[in-house]
Amino acid sequence: MAVQTVATSSDSTVDLGPAAALSCRECGHRVPLGPVFACEECFGPLEIAYDFSAYDTEELRRRIEAGPASIWRYAPLLPVPADVAEKPNLNPGWTKLVKADNLARELGVTGGLYVKDDSGNPTHSFKDRVVAQALEAARAFGFTTLSCSSTGNLAGAVGAAAARAGFRSCVFIPHDLEQGKIVMAAVYGGELVGIEGNYDDVNRFCSELIGDPSGEGWGFVNVNLRPYYAEGSKTLAYEICEQLGWRLPDQIVIPIASGSQLTKIDKGLQELIKLGLVEDRPYKIFGAQAEGCSPVSTAFKAGHDVVRPQKPDTIAKSLAIGNPADGPYVLDVARRTGGAVEDVTDAQIVDAIRLLARTEGIFAETAGGVTVGVTRKLLQEGVLDPAKTTVVLNTGDGLKTLDAVAGTGLTATIRPTLDSFREAGLA
Amino acid sequence: MAVQTVATSSDSTVDLGPAAALSCRECGHRVPLGPVFACEECFGPLEIAYDFSAYDTEELRRRIEAGPASIWRYAPLLPVPADVAEKPNLNPGWTKLVKADNLARELGVTGGLYVKDDSGNPTHSFKDRVVAQALEAARAFGFTTLSCSSTGNLAGAVGAAAARAGFRSCVFIPHDLEQGKIVMAAVYGGELVGIEGNYDDVNRFCSELIGDPSGEGWGFVNVNLRPYYAEGSKTLAYEICEQLGWRLPDQIVIPIASGSQLTKIDKGLQELIKLGLVEDRPYKIFGAQAEGCSPVSTAFKAGHDVVRPQKPDTIAKSLAIGNPADGPYVLDVARRTGGAVEDVTDAQIVDAIRLLARTEGIFAETAGGVTVGVTRKLLQEGVLDPAKTTVVLNTGDGLKTLDAVAGTGLTATIRPTLDSFREAGLA
Repeated sequence: MAVQTVATSSDSTVDLGPAAALSCRECGHRVPLGPVFACEECFGPLEIAYDFSAYDTEELRRRIEAGPASIWRYAPLLPVPADVAEKPNLNPGWTKLVKADNLARELGVTGGLYVKDDSGNPTHSFKDRVVAQALEAARAFGFTTLSCSSTGNLAGAVGAAAARAGFRSCVFIPHDLEQGKIVMAAVYGGELVGIEGNYDDVNRFCSELIGDPSGEGWGFVNVNLRPYYAEGSKTLAYEICEQLGWRLPDQIVIPIASGSQLTKIDKGLQELIKLGLVEDRPYKIFGAQAEGCSPVSTAFKAGHDVVRPQKPDTIAKSLAIGNPADGPYVLDVARRTGGAVEDVTDAQIVDAIRLLARTEGIFAETAGGVTVGVTRKLLQEGVLDPAKTTVVLNTGDGLKTLDAVAGTGLTATIRPTLDSFREAGLA
Repeated sequence: MAVQTVATSSDSTVDLGPAAALSCRECGHRVPLGPVFACEECFGPLEIAYDFSAYDTEELRRRIEAGPASIWRYAPLLPVPADVAEKPNLNPGWTKLVKADNLARELGVTGGLYVKDDSGNPTHSFKDRVVAQALEAARAFGFTTLSCSSTGNLAGAVGAAAARAGFRSCVFIPHDLEQGKIVMAAVYGGELVGIEGNYDDVNRFCSELIGDPSGEGWGFVNVNLRPYYAEGSKTLAYEICEQLGWRLPDQIVIPIASGSQLTKIDKGLQELIKLGLVEDRPYKIFGAQAEGCSPVSTAFKAGHDVVRPQKPDTIAKSLAIGNPADGPYVLDVARRTGGAVEDVTDAQIVDAIRLLARTEGIFAETAGGVTVGVTRKLLQEGVLDPAKTTVVLNTGDGLKTLDAVAGTGLTATIRPTLDSFREAGLA
């Protein structure tokens, strides 16, 4: 579907709230709202440009606080229509910001340590936030099929959102994924197509399909709807600040896959400052990767501006993007804010999953092990300041990556008698 | 630990809010608050007796509405101290009440159909609600170890809650549980003890341990703390009514394991009526079982007052209690309110899991398949009125019972080419 055939913001048929246009991140070239993702001038990534000029700070704050217990409390700051909460969707977000005092004691953090726990989302990962934005864009552009390429979390999030919203869904995955991940994605009843190839082959195929008449009417959440989709990560920034009492944290530790989430959280914080919803003071953003897929932390440590692709080999599969599209922007954000990018080994990831579970009762997926593990490492290195307010993201659920802690088992096996119990030394 | 040795409500050390005493459900005999569960006069089950006399209806309503987005908004109606939300706990509850319009269309419900989706709890089942109450009782009575017998959901809920609250935990399970369930329970770092025997053996052993010096200082959430624990299910009733705009639903479909949840939801609705928080009008309560473990529905259909034990054989393992302690009370509630108790086959359970996922994007555990399946069956039988407001409970998460839908898979496998895509008829 070419850009000139779709409805734009000047048409009465498109209402995406405060979203005014798409703007190229590289050259600033503006185009009307539509299902496009690359600049026609320079091939740079397109982002949403907003018009927030009419907002009064205190009125906006009251409106947000009186809003629903979901990302839609921030509808005035997202590319969605004002009545979005009334449309059928999964209403993700407004997940818990857990004050992690036990973990803080273990790590020696005295300035307040918080876990933003996105396992509380409807399909138990942060992907529900981004898919919910793409869904509204798909409605606005008249798409009837919701699609994506995925290796797990995104497939489930798209399948569930499409089911609830009455869209057809068709999700593409590598054909040899683990059976559990296939079940989780297939249960929502959409088409689930295995591609004979790896994730890169799946992605390449999806890009071909968008340009083909076969793909007409299809919204690929992470391809032709990507500018809208990516904005969903801003809601993590909004929620963290509101839950801290409309205050910026000093330090945030964020996982890096494509890097989009980290850059959009920074964008969200900047918006809150510009809107006057939080006081403008310094914050530092830290990126977290697995050693087995650490192209951004490698570039950061080497002082490079470009990110050299890697072949991923890590248990943190939801972060295993060897050629992260937003890698250079992540480097910008980390350096501009005085943060850093660090990585941890698979063994450190597993240790960190256990540490978080045993201290706070939160069972994180491997990506959460990456952020907690990197937090520990950066504290040991003296890069994170233990006296500052620190927020660590857990973006998914341990139930989806059980294999990572599969060695965990019974501490004892006994006969059903008190003698056997005493012999085991459990009393 | 004998009742006379524990702190009671007349002691300054015990503060369980409005909880005034324990009262026997059978003979009404009252004893002070303590870690006891059976009446010393008649062996009947003990329940919490409250003193709500000081509450002004509108003030209470405002206090609740201004409260936290968790079960603690209802602290004034629970056996917990007023400052419970400030103590380290998992803050469960305030889960979504999903207006299920797609499912309603499929089932022919016109009066409004809602799914109360408790998969949104911290460990993704309703057990977090009940464990949170038991935890506060354990604190009040000076216990330092949290324990239970379990076959799955409860083990994880206890392990997580104990970790966060700084309790030792020691959970007993049959030693031959599926590895996945063992991992989910063990990850929180507490003791996880396999008992050589079945669930009945585990239960029997736990009862022995409570009477033994080895068990001193141990709070078994579902044994000696059961009166407190069980109250957690009242919060489902409170939330449903508040989320409906302080209105009773006409019909509620609730799964039956021990039967405690169903009777406590009825108790919660009766409390809201007595407190004036909802209008007093008729409601009907429906119980749902799996055919392979249907002692209560068998008794209901036969017109019996007693429940004859069964040997469970069903995929709905979280409901597989063959000798449900509260079975007779469930029969009372269903008959008094004009409801019913029904059961569905394992095949119908799986169909219903898929139906809910494909219509609303909610992936339920087998217990949710039971309630949705029974709802469909009762509508077909003309027992449920399609013109009435109906609430169906989903008490757990499909990620925990993936085996039930293991047959679900890819709808097609193709090569990464447009030709292959077209040949598969997916366009």
